[in-house]
Amino acid sequence: MTTAQLDKMRLELRRGVLVLAVLGSLRQRHYGYSLRRHLQDAGIDIDEGTLYPLVRRLADQGLLESEWQQGEGRERRYYQLSELGAELLQQLTQEWSTLNNALLPLLQPEQAKPTEEQG
Amino acid sequence: MTTAQLDKMRLELRRGVLVLAVLGSLRQRHYGYSLRRHLQDAGIDIDEGTLYPLVRRLADQGLLESEWQQGEGRERRYYQLSELGAELLQQLTQEWSTLNNALLPLLQPEQAKPTEEQG
Repeated sequence: MTTAQLDKMRLELRRGVLVLAVLGSLRQRHYGYSLRRHLQDAGIDIDEGTLYPLVRRLADQGLLESEWQQGEGRERRYYQLSELGAELLQQLTQEWSTLNNALLPLLQPEQAKPTEEQG
Repeated sequence: MTTAQLDKMRLELRRGVLVLAVLGSLRQRHYGYSLRRHLQDAGIDIDEGTLYPLVRRLADQGLLESEWQQGEGRERRYYQLSELGAELLQQLTQEWSTLNNALLPLLQPEQAKPTEEQG
């Protein structure tokens, strides 16, 4: 297994989580940099080249509302969850929780089941 | 937002989880169908067209050991986690747990923080 393959798996694992993290964060209003800091504070490190296109994609899909506004001497584009985005967030959070609950027993260190199943 | 876009997000959310679920399950020996049932029993529904190529990919990457064996009158290919696969599973599980811990506060229904962050 190469480092590239390992990185790809890590990326796959992160990708869905990132969307959830961004939608969850944007229940509060943020501009790009403040969103990135908010995620970092939570422990999710994401570079600008990944975060900003993702945010624009979510806005293009109607999941975010955005507005330009003056802040500290420059125009900033502020984003916040739209009504549609809030609905999607709820659905994906539900799905996430279901997946996690299913996954946890499969990752337990010990399993009482036999090594091989019949079927 | 179209249904296709929604499905794509769901798929992204599932993709990383599926790899973890398969690796976790294959600490026990399984052939294709018994693995699929094992996942279904855990609540993870995955069709053959997704699962079997994934398993073959993981085997090609050296994460699984496989062997053909006679079972109930036909040859079946049995899979089990290799040493490398076990290492990767441990790493990804750790990463998963870190991501989840970071994500949870971002999905909490209420947040005490102000609507807008300075930065």
